[in-house]
Amino acid sequence: MLPVEVLEQAREEMLEWPGSGMCVAEMSHRGKEFMSIAAQAEADLRELLAIPEGYKVLFLQGGASMQFAMVPMNLLRGERSADYINTGAWSKKAISEAKRYCTVNLAASTEAVKFTAAPAQTELKLDPDAAYVHYTPNETIGGVEFSYVPDTAGVPLVADMSSTLLSRPIDVSRYGLIYAGAQKNIGPAGLTIVIVRDDLIGETLAGTPTMLDYGTHAENGSMYNTPPTYAWYLAGLVFQWLKAKGGLTGMAAINERKAKALYAAIDGSALYSNPVDPASRSWMNVPFVLADPQLDEAFLKESKAAGLTTLKGHRSVGGMRASIYNAMPEAGVQTLIEVMADFEKRTG
Amino acid sequence: MLPVEVLEQAREEMLEWPGSGMCVAEMSHRGKEFMSIAAQAEADLRELLAIPEGYKVLFLQGGASMQFAMVPMNLLRGERSADYINTGAWSKKAISEAKRYCTVNLAASTEAVKFTAAPAQTELKLDPDAAYVHYTPNETIGGVEFSYVPDTAGVPLVADMSSTLLSRPIDVSRYGLIYAGAQKNIGPAGLTIVIVRDDLIGETLAGTPTMLDYGTHAENGSMYNTPPTYAWYLAGLVFQWLKAKGGLTGMAAINERKAKALYAAIDGSALYSNPVDPASRSWMNVPFVLADPQLDEAFLKESKAAGLTTLKGHRSVGGMRASIYNAMPEAGVQTLIEVMADFEKRTG
Repeated sequence: MLPVEVLEQAREEMLEWPGSGMCVAEMSHRGKEFMSIAAQAEADLRELLAIPEGYKVLFLQGGASMQFAMVPMNLLRGERSADYINTGAWSKKAISEAKRYCTVNLAASTEAVKFTAAPAQTELKLDPDAAYVHYTPNETIGGVEFSYVPDTAGVPLVADMSSTLLSRPIDVSRYGLIYAGAQKNIGPAGLTIVIVRDDLIGETLAGTPTMLDYGTHAENGSMYNTPPTYAWYLAGLVFQWLKAKGGLTGMAAINERKAKALYAAIDGSALYSNPVDPASRSWMNVPFVLADPQLDEAFLKESKAAGLTTLKGHRSVGGMRASIYNAMPEAGVQTLIEVMADFEKRTG
Repeated sequence: MLPVEVLEQAREEMLEWPGSGMCVAEMSHRGKEFMSIAAQAEADLRELLAIPEGYKVLFLQGGASMQFAMVPMNLLRGERSADYINTGAWSKKAISEAKRYCTVNLAASTEAVKFTAAPAQTELKLDPDAAYVHYTPNETIGGVEFSYVPDTAGVPLVADMSSTLLSRPIDVSRYGLIYAGAQKNIGPAGLTIVIVRDDLIGETLAGTPTMLDYGTHAENGSMYNTPPTYAWYLAGLVFQWLKAKGGLTGMAAINERKAKALYAAIDGSALYSNPVDPASRSWMNVPFVLADPQLDEAFLKESKAAGLTTLKGHRSVGGMRASIYNAMPEAGVQTLIEVMADFEKRTG
C-alpha cells in the first residue's frame, strides 16, 4: 500500500518531472535531475532514521531474499559461524540460505510455541565469536514483533526490517546492518534498502559476484550500474510524506493507535482471535482467525465490498491478516473494525 | 525513453488499475490482478519475439551486471572455460566478471580497431569445448551492432541484448540464453528479462546464491520472492504498444528508417562524423563527434532547447550519442537532424 498523496504526486509527474521534460523512469541515472532526486531521498531517509555518521545507505535490488545471501557473503569476514534467531517464516529462510555459507548457531527459536512470541533477551544463547547476530524484528506472516533490541555484547547485529522499517524510530547505532525490501513499508517492490556500518564493508567470500559486494555499491553511491530509478523516486516521495506526517515519532503514535484499536477489537470478540503473546504483537501485521473457518469466505467477500482488499492470510497459514503499514490510514483500520463487528453481529 | 502513450496509460491507472481498487505498485504479487498482468506481459513478449517451446522467460532484477555473474554460475555446468567476443565496454565488463568463475577464451576482439566494427564470422576463433559463447549484439557506448548471428556449431550462444532486444525480429532458437536490462528498449530500470533454454537450467557452481540460480525463478514463475511488480507492469504496457505498432517487423522498419536518416545526415556533413564501419553501425545508439569539440557545449545547449535532452556521449568517450530506441519517434530523429543541420550552417 502506498499513501494516496504519494500516488497523486506520482500521477501528476508521470509525463514530466518538473522542469525536466521527461518522466523519472526515462531519466539517465547519472543525469543531474535523477542525481538530485536520489540524493534528496537518501538525505530524507538519513534524517528520518537519524542515521549516525559511519553508516552507508545503499539502494539495491533483489529484496530480502538476496540479502539472505549477501549478509553472510559480506559479513563473515574470515569467521565460520553466525548466530541466528528463529522467530518464523522469514527467519527460517534467512537461516536456510546462511547455512550454505557458514555454520548457523541457533541463538533462540520460538518454534516450540508455534512462533507466537519473540524470545526474551535472557533466552538468547549468543556466541561471542559469531561473525554477527541475525534476527527478524517483525515477522510478517506470524505477526510477531520484538519489543526490544537484542544486546549482542559487541557482535554486529543484523536485522531484516522489511516489514517494520520506518514504522517507528529506531536507534541505528545498535545495528551493524539493517536491510529492508521496500514493498512493505517504504515504496514499490524492486527496491531494497541496506544501511551498513562502514567497518563491515570490504571483505567478501571468494566467488562473491561483484554485484553482491556491498563495497561495489558503497563506492559508487548505489550507481555501479543502473539502479531502480523509478522505485527510488517513489520511495523518496514516501520519505517526504513521512516527514510531513511528523517523522517517525508521529508515525509511531499513529501506528500504535491503529494496532491497539485492532487488537482490542479482536480480543473483545468471540468470533476473532489472535494467538500472539501480547508483549510480542506486531504493529504492522495482525493475523487473526475466525472461530468458524467456514465463515472465512463470507468475511473476505464483505470486507472486499468495504474496500479492504488484501485481508486473506498468507497461503502458508490461512486465516486473515491485516497489514496495517504506514500507508494504511487510521480510518481504514476503523472501517475494518466496523466490518468485523457488523459481521460478527449477524453471524454470531 | 518510454512511449508517451505508455506513460499516459500509466498515469491514467496510477490511482486505480481498472476494477482493482488499487495501484499496481500496491498489489500483492500473488493476487489474481497482478498474476493476470504478469501472465499477459509474458504472453505478449513470447508473441512479439516468437519464442519457441522449450524456453523460459524470467522477469528478474539486477540488470545486465548481475547477469555477468549469473551466466557463468549457471551455464558452466562442469566446464572450465567459455568463449567471449570483445566488442567494447559492455563486452569487457562481462568478460571481467566471467574471469572470476572460469577461463575466458577471447574468441575475437576488435580492440585493435578501437571497437569500430563487429568481427566477421570467419574471424571468430571458437573452442568446440567451451561451455558457451557470449557476445554483445549491440554495444551501447560504441554504437556497434552485429549484422549477423554468430554460428557456434552447437555451443550455446549467450547474448547481452540490453540495448537491442525488441528493436527487430530475432530467431530465438539460435540462442541458448538472451538477457536484457529493461531500461534501454523495454521499460523502466529495475527489471531484467532473461530468456533461457530449458536444458541450460538446473546446474550451478557451488556457492551460487538461491536468488542467482535460474532454476529458482524458472520453478516459481519469477515469483520466488516479490518481483519488481510496477516495472513488470510498465514493460507489459510497452509490449502492448509494440503489438499495436505492428510488432517487431513494424518496429524494425521504423528503426531502420530512423537510423539510415541519421547516419546519412552525419555522413553528408563536414561537422559531424561517426567512426563505425557502415556494416556494423547500430540502429539504436548513434555516437558522433563534432569536428571542433569546442562546439560541443553550444550544440548540447541548442539541442536541449529543441527538446533533445540526453545527447551527451557516455562519460568514458565524450562527444555525442543519439539513443534512438523504439520509444524515440521518427519525428524526434527528424528534429535532431534539423538541429544538426541548422547548427552546422551557422557555425560552419
